[in-house]
Amino acid sequence: MSFVDELRVGAGFRLAEVDPDSTPGFSGDRDDGEKALAKGAAALGGLQELLFANTEHDPRSVLLVLQAMDTAGKGGIVRHVVGSVDPQGVHIHAFKKPTPEELAHDFLWRVERELPGPGRIGVFDRSHYEDVLIGRVRQLADAAEIERRYGAINEFEERVAASGTVIVKVMLHISADEQRDRLAERLERPDKYWKFNPGDLAERALWDQYQDAYQLVFERTDTEIAPWHVVPANHKWFARLSVAQLLTDALRSLGQDWPPADFDVEEQKQALGV
Amino acid sequence: MSFVDELRVGAGFRLAEVDPDSTPGFSGDRDDGEKALAKGAAALGGLQELLFANTEHDPRSVLLVLQAMDTAGKGGIVRHVVGSVDPQGVHIHAFKKPTPEELAHDFLWRVERELPGPGRIGVFDRSHYEDVLIGRVRQLADAAEIERRYGAINEFEERVAASGTVIVKVMLHISADEQRDRLAERLERPDKYWKFNPGDLAERALWDQYQDAYQLVFERTDTEIAPWHVVPANHKWFARLSVAQLLTDALRSLGQDWPPADFDVEEQKQALGV
Repeated sequence: MSFVDELRVGAGFRLAEVDPDSTPGFSGDRDDGEKALAKGAAALGGLQELLFANTEHDPRSVLLVLQAMDTAGKGGIVRHVVGSVDPQGVHIHAFKKPTPEELAHDFLWRVERELPGPGRIGVFDRSHYEDVLIGRVRQLADAAEIERRYGAINEFEERVAASGTVIVKVMLHISADEQRDRLAERLERPDKYWKFNPGDLAERALWDQYQDAYQLVFERTDTEIAPWHVVPANHKWFARLSVAQLLTDALRSLGQDWPPADFDVEEQKQALGV
Repeated sequence: MSFVDELRVGAGFRLAEVDPDSTPGFSGDRDDGEKALAKGAAALGGLQELLFANTEHDPRSVLLVLQAMDTAGKGGIVRHVVGSVDPQGVHIHAFKKPTPEELAHDFLWRVERELPGPGRIGVFDRSHYEDVLIGRVRQLADAAEIERRYGAINEFEERVAASGTVIVKVMLHISADEQRDRLAERLERPDKYWKFNPGDLAERALWDQYQDAYQLVFERTDTEIAPWHVVPANHKWFARLSVAQLLTDALRSLGQDWPPADFDVEEQKQALGV
């Protein structure tokens, strides 16, 4: 048990009742949070090395799915949390607007191709959930197809989990006011212009519809093998600390140890002359 | 000009004359080196963000090619130097023993596929140079084919550079004694067994032939657009500091600035209501 258990979506969960300013389960302030994150980075790094070391012996992997409204801090999670472990063992993929080739396939086709291999931590910056979020809000597919997708996602994730991938699904939850402030900052600072896209305002105008679409996602795709976590993210330090802890818990759940030598140690020492 | 200019392979270069224990161009000790690395990480991270920010505006990229004898510290470079920047903007590929599919193609086929896209730093952990190193020492191809490859590599790199990729080629240079000590450590510590491969000793037995093959690589493939650097690597801190500086210099050579807004800033502020 760790504080992040409080972030888990469960029966009767209501997104509208989660305060994006809150820091559930964590009683400290920003300073405490940043210290805890720095301290936890060593543990996370150690567990990731263990995962990587077992690549040849253990097919398992971890997949972090990050979803959020614009500016909620996905990039910061990748940079500061995922970035604290050895990049060799990480596979990050940012899902953008689908290409014509991707659109010619089922929506899960491009996702399957980016799943982490044995010993790896995979990170999805956006994911197949876009196909039931923007897909629903913008009516990019008809209602029956959107309905079909929830079930397809659950079957897909069940198969991925059965093949040995621990799935950690996270929605970073900010308030509309916080988003306005963060967008405003991107418009104030020339070194942030590149992060701004006029299309972000069009999506922002559909805030309530997106919140509803997220609520539906939780109702339809929060499962035992691939549970959702909603992380209040108005405080960046809390969001980072929470995702670091979720990754740490996922890795720890594998119960791995250093793999045994698949050679005769003494014989090799002799051959080396030591 | 920075201290790493001294590491550049040039006319008349002799690998055998480079002392793996030396720290050319840097007068400090380990403590100074680690401080300089930590200090430089912010600059490196800032330049990498600038590269990434320009993805849509500037097709250029940086490619770091890492070659070395086993245990020389490639992994540590990836972890501690490459790992200090945002993993979102990095594409790392470790070239292993070629698969049957890869062998069915020209040796550069698999390399082409892993080149960094616009705005990215690509890292090759081993590379196409294996095909003229182990390829030569183990006679995996006949002499004429090995000869052909040097020319093919130069033409390939010329094309890659012309397309906007700054190529930084690095050989981490350790001594045979240092390698013995590092292999011995892997045999002493159960948490290091996974890094040991009995095949490493077979390669070690061919040390001199590999040094000769590297010497030939430098003579045949050190070019203006893709120069080689030999980094003395018995001191890990010096190797890391040097590669960090080489990357920093490569990024700085792009002379990038934050991309201009491709939208009307005031209009967007108004639309946002700020």
